[in-house]
Amino acid sequence: MSNIFLLVPFASILALVFAWFFFKSMMKNSEGTDRMKEIAQYVREGAMAYLKRQYKVVGIVFVILFILLTIMAYFGVQNPFVPIAFLTGGFFSGLCGFLGMKTATFASARTAHGASKSLNKGLQVAFRSGAVMGLVVVGFALLDIAAWYLLLTEVIFTPEHMATGLHFAGLQFVHEGTTETQKLIEITTTMLTFGMGASTQALFARVGGGIYTKAADVGADLVGKVEAGIPEDDPRNPATIADNVGDNVGDVAGMGADLYESYAGSILATAALGAALPAIVLSDLNIDPIKAVTAPMIVAAIGIILSIVGIFMVRTKESATQKNLLNALLIGTGGSSLLILIAMAGMAYFGWVTWGVFWAVIIGLAAGVIIGQATEYFTSDEYKPTKGIAEQAQQGPATTIIDGLAVGMYSTWIPVVTIVLGIMGSFWAAGGATHFAMGVYGIGFAAVGMLSTLGITLATDAFGPIADNAGGNAEMAELPPEVRERTDALDMLGNTTAATGKGFAIGSAALTAMALISAYMEEVRLWFGKIAKGGEGFITKGEYIFYNDVAPAAQEGFKLVKISTASVKDLAASYDITLFNPLFLGGLFLGSMMAFVFSAMTMKAVGRAAGAMVDEVRRQFREIKGILEGTAVPEYAKCVEISTRGAQREMLLPSLVAIFVPVIVGAFMGVAGVIGLLAGGLTAGFTLAVFMNNAGGAWDNAKKYIEKGNFGGKGSEAHKAGVVGDTVGDPFKDTSGPSLNILIKLMTMVSVVMAGLTVTLSLLF
Amino acid sequence: MSNIFLLVPFASILALVFAWFFFKSMMKNSEGTDRMKEIAQYVREGAMAYLKRQYKVVGIVFVILFILLTIMAYFGVQNPFVPIAFLTGGFFSGLCGFLGMKTATFASARTAHGASKSLNKGLQVAFRSGAVMGLVVVGFALLDIAAWYLLLTEVIFTPEHMATGLHFAGLQFVHEGTTETQKLIEITTTMLTFGMGASTQALFARVGGGIYTKAADVGADLVGKVEAGIPEDDPRNPATIADNVGDNVGDVAGMGADLYESYAGSILATAALGAALPAIVLSDLNIDPIKAVTAPMIVAAIGIILSIVGIFMVRTKESATQKNLLNALLIGTGGSSLLILIAMAGMAYFGWVTWGVFWAVIIGLAAGVIIGQATEYFTSDEYKPTKGIAEQAQQGPATTIIDGLAVGMYSTWIPVVTIVLGIMGSFWAAGGATHFAMGVYGIGFAAVGMLSTLGITLATDAFGPIADNAGGNAEMAELPPEVRERTDALDMLGNTTAATGKGFAIGSAALTAMALISAYMEEVRLWFGKIAKGGEGFITKGEYIFYNDVAPAAQEGFKLVKISTASVKDLAASYDITLFNPLFLGGLFLGSMMAFVFSAMTMKAVGRAAGAMVDEVRRQFREIKGILEGTAVPEYAKCVEISTRGAQREMLLPSLVAIFVPVIVGAFMGVAGVIGLLAGGLTAGFTLAVFMNNAGGAWDNAKKYIEKGNFGGKGSEAHKAGVVGDTVGDPFKDTSGPSLNILIKLMTMVSVVMAGLTVTLSLLF
Repeated sequence: MSNIFLLVPFASILALVFAWFFFKSMMKNSEGTDRMKEIAQYVREGAMAYLKRQYKVVGIVFVILFILLTIMAYFGVQNPFVPIAFLTGGFFSGLCGFLGMKTATFASARTAHGASKSLNKGLQVAFRSGAVMGLVVVGFALLDIAAWYLLLTEVIFTPEHMATGLHFAGLQFVHEGTTETQKLIEITTTMLTFGMGASTQALFARVGGGIYTKAADVGADLVGKVEAGIPEDDPRNPATIADNVGDNVGDVAGMGADLYESYAGSILATAALGAALPAIVLSDLNIDPIKAVTAPMIVAAIGIILSIVGIFMVRTKESATQKNLLNALLIGTGGSSLLILIAMAGMAYFGWVTWGVFWAVIIGLAAGVIIGQATEYFTSDEYKPTKGIAEQAQQGPATTIIDGLAVGMYSTWIPVVTIVLGIMGSFWAAGGATHFAMGVYGIGFAAVGMLSTLGITLATDAFGPIADNAGGNAEMAELPPEVRERTDALDMLGNTTAATGKGFAIGSAALTAMALISAYMEEVRLWFGKIAKGGEGFITKGEYIFYNDVAPAAQEGFKLVKISTASVKDLAASYDITLFNPLFLGGLFLGSMMAFVFSAMTMKAVGRAAGAMVDEVRRQFREIKGILEGTAVPEYAKCVEISTRGAQREMLLPSLVAIFVPVIVGAFMGVAGVIGLLAGGLTAGFTLAVFMNNAGGAWDNAKKYIEKGNFGGKGSEAHKAGVVGDTVGDPFKDTSGPSLNILIKLMTMVSVVMAGLTVTLSLLF
Repeated sequence: MSNIFLLVPFASILALVFAWFFFKSMMKNSEGTDRMKEIAQYVREGAMAYLKRQYKVVGIVFVILFILLTIMAYFGVQNPFVPIAFLTGGFFSGLCGFLGMKTATFASARTAHGASKSLNKGLQVAFRSGAVMGLVVVGFALLDIAAWYLLLTEVIFTPEHMATGLHFAGLQFVHEGTTETQKLIEITTTMLTFGMGASTQALFARVGGGIYTKAADVGADLVGKVEAGIPEDDPRNPATIADNVGDNVGDVAGMGADLYESYAGSILATAALGAALPAIVLSDLNIDPIKAVTAPMIVAAIGIILSIVGIFMVRTKESATQKNLLNALLIGTGGSSLLILIAMAGMAYFGWVTWGVFWAVIIGLAAGVIIGQATEYFTSDEYKPTKGIAEQAQQGPATTIIDGLAVGMYSTWIPVVTIVLGIMGSFWAAGGATHFAMGVYGIGFAAVGMLSTLGITLATDAFGPIADNAGGNAEMAELPPEVRERTDALDMLGNTTAATGKGFAIGSAALTAMALISAYMEEVRLWFGKIAKGGEGFITKGEYIFYNDVAPAAQEGFKLVKISTASVKDLAASYDITLFNPLFLGGLFLGSMMAFVFSAMTMKAVGRAAGAMVDEVRRQFREIKGILEGTAVPEYAKCVEISTRGAQREMLLPSLVAIFVPVIVGAFMGVAGVIGLLAGGLTAGFTLAVFMNNAGGAWDNAKKYIEKGNFGGKGSEAHKAGVVGDTVGDPFKDTSGPSLNILIKLMTMVSVVMAGLTVTLSLLF
């Protein structure tokens, strides 16, 4: 192990230390009046009630999947480490969600209290609390990676075990005569699969959170605001606490788990691609295999340290204006990015990465910024698209919907072109033209680069819902109007950064999925080597099949396996991922379909859960006398309970579909079918997600634009049409759209983990 | 030339003869009262005014493209026949549109008059008029194919010309020493490109027609029905004639051109794939190359004859009920399909096609039926999905929209799974597992099979708008209510068959595009052979590069070209259509994006054109006194003019994007990028089209379901919400959705025609 690798555990622990520090310093602030404390307590209890139930359901799913994976390991179609890695990945992701929610729910009243002093004070509390979420996500993700890497390299794959083999409980952990190159491939492909735990947990967090937040929101709006005519966040509204809980559940826990997965997935996939390099291009380029594997982790570690620096750069004067605040945030995120650029140049200069990788990281960072800006352009009411929707609202709801859908569809072009240029650019920059594997490795680094500043970008993202909740707290605690104005200013700031954050989440999901798909092929290659039938019986673990024409010269420690003609045909068919393999093409169709069907399921789920909420709020208004007069307290907990139950019930089916479809396609259509499925899901899913996110965002802001007094303002026909648009947009932008991020990655992750099964089945039949 | 080939020109002329016969027999019917004649005259004039203007614009585009293609031919990157073939393809497609519209507009008053006698009489007039459209489409398409095939085989590629070469005006039409195998490849790839003419004309017909019909419809509805409160098809509504013209423009001319293109495209692509067989699998399977090329044409010819038989099978008793009528239609279409099955078995028995091809045709026919039935399930108010939308309408427009979108997205699964099974099934049935090229040939036959009964299925489709117009005529001419009831019954019957027809149109577009993409590779292969740089300079025309590993043994008349390493790399890179070529993957992303952006453009276009119409109708109500009292005649022609102008203006941009994007992608991203673009456009475009078609259809019928008295009936809140859904659905199902059929095919066609340019550019840089 190289000394510089120690930077990885160091940075991850540093992140956790600073998270602790920010949490403590946030907790030192006062929660304000008793009323404020009481409201915060309601939200906190609601959030924890949700998490408890959520983790119970997720826990059951994890136990079932753990058992399935263990059985697979027993039958030799699964790596024996995978079941445990699956658990740790899920556990840490869940822990981040818990800590982030805890922090956010502690912070809201404190932010409101801070805002009652000054805008800057409010920002400091909210932003530092957001930073807790950002830092625990990157900290735990990298800690998990570092721990596994150290365990596998230092304890499992010791020189003795590699020479004599390591068996335990009937399972072979290390086979006899493992070489250094094989070792790295085994280690990285094993670690890759722990992303599956993070993915599964993220799926439930995103889908469940998305359903929860929109059910509560729609219930609160439709009955409270529209039917009863009381304002937003009014304490008389029974669904108002659930609505505030929902902001945390969706935007803090859901977003955090989503990016945790992207973060871990991109690092692990790139490491796995790095491990494959030696066998392919090492001889030519003279790359140190250890460096190739650890480089993405080290880049991430540096990113963490520089994110912390960036967080401290977010400072303003006491008398800061809205514009100052935005600038302060931009200095923080921009500063981190710039420092990473310099650090990467240093790494390239000292030979830890190639200059090509340096460029790939820069391309990834730039792509994230461009997608974020494009999102801002298409969804902010300062620009033409959203203004146009508001204008169409004058003609009624139908034209509002049509125009919003058109804006959303049209808006896909910039993100898609950016991703395409990003993929091609990082591929060529990293040397893909001469060494294909280097190019793919470069694409992985573009994802790592985009996510390297996650510590601070997630902070700017997570502070939005905290400010939003602070506003709710201020409203319900009946604080003076200027407090609400300040929290609204923070909320608006949060909306700006959130738009960027959403583009960032989907952009990184695409690049991560891309890297994962490439890594999937490595996994498949490995499994073919393990179980393909050779000319003289089964191929043993030490052999490695090179089907591609790429230089089979440098395979230190591997021998090219001679397999019978029939096996070659199976292998070739499974590898034939050209368009003219009907399995691949069929997979493409199915992947595209999955994106649409999954979105349909999540949209329907929101509808059903919201319906139950609407009934409940109506019931409370009807049955509990004195709610509207303010003389009776509504049963907040009941609404929280209903949203929670609705989310749990509704998230299961789409989640199981996302998990099992890749397995089924793998079983019936082999590797080529799976690759098609993943590619179709990635490309159509990405486009559909951008469409849904941006249409939803644009409707939301078009409505707000009308509310500012344009086209007749509040209460006008245009406003009514705007509200219809906003309501349609809610599940678009907060449930279905973001859930697609996960679908794209999870299907790939499942395929990676199930590669052994898929390969075995494709060789058996 | 074999004698049995004469069946092809014979069947195509037979189709035209019967079309003439049906037209004449329809014209013998009375047009009814003077008022009926007058109204029919208005619609006819409007339709012809539209067509005149449309063909002028299309004509200009054709002249420009003709010049471009001619220049390309001059510089040797285009086959010299292509510019002329391009013109004939476009001309015949346009002629079909003209004749179909002429017939339909002559038929509407006659149908209304027939319906005033009996339901059956009305059906006979409308259906026989629809049959005219069906038969001219298949007749002219196959005539064009037969004429070119005869010209090329008998006049151009004569044994003398093949021996000595054929030059004219500096262009080489036949090179010296052409072999029989080369001849067939040259002929079929040349003919393939005349699909480009049909494609371009279809694009304008679909997009222009779709914009026209929806602009008129929205204008008539929003101002006439909603604002002025007058019923549908009321003569006081200035937009009512334009609305009736729109039915013809969109559903007759647009649909006809769309299917003309699929029909010609599938036959030509399959012929091209058949021509490539000899070089690849001939030696093994002992297939006669001439048979392989002409088989799809002969299947089509048999299909025409059996369609005519089917048309005569559509008969009912005078006292027929609605159910009898539907059964009569089903006997016609089902009978044709059954007869084709028997005929195909005969062809297989006598060795004209393999039994594998027989199964491929059956699979294609079955896939068409399944997709049609699925469309019916998801959009008819007899089933749960549409009823559910109507139920949601009680909660207001937002939930109506959300539920409709969810239904549309969810509904993609059956068509996608059917297409996937169809592709895989026809591939394997035709022998793709052992002979890859045979499998692809089989996929082509699935498309040919699905479209073989087009003569009659298009008749059942085109009769819908005729019945719809007859209803308008009856309403405006103030015929007794039972006449309108009967035409409504016919209209409803038309809606049922139209749902099936829409599924059929998109399904056949997918299979045709699939066959075209495969044929594209043949085109590319050919062009590489023509212009790739060899080790010793340019490769001459007689050489043919086999890059794939597939048996280069049987290349009679070709020699495997030895090209330098650099060229091999270029070639390999261009051919590398595996997922890991970033060009291919980038193309996939761009293809998916194209589907969304193109839909956005067409939706926006409808919005703008409809806005102009709304203004005009409002102006007439305001400025022309006495319209609403019925004392003044509105300026129908003005509305027709506005819709026409709007459609022409708005159709240009999306059309040009569809034509030029593949060229641009080809120039910058080479063959792999183009293939990715086509695959992404096909898979995402197909899914998106099904989504939009079905969501639109379901909203339409949900509204009608409410109007039948459910959930409060007409005038209720649910109805208002239903109207919003219907209005959103209009551009979905009548403009953007159907236009995607064309986008999918046209992008492929353009790529085929531009293959020479793409290959040249990819080798130059």
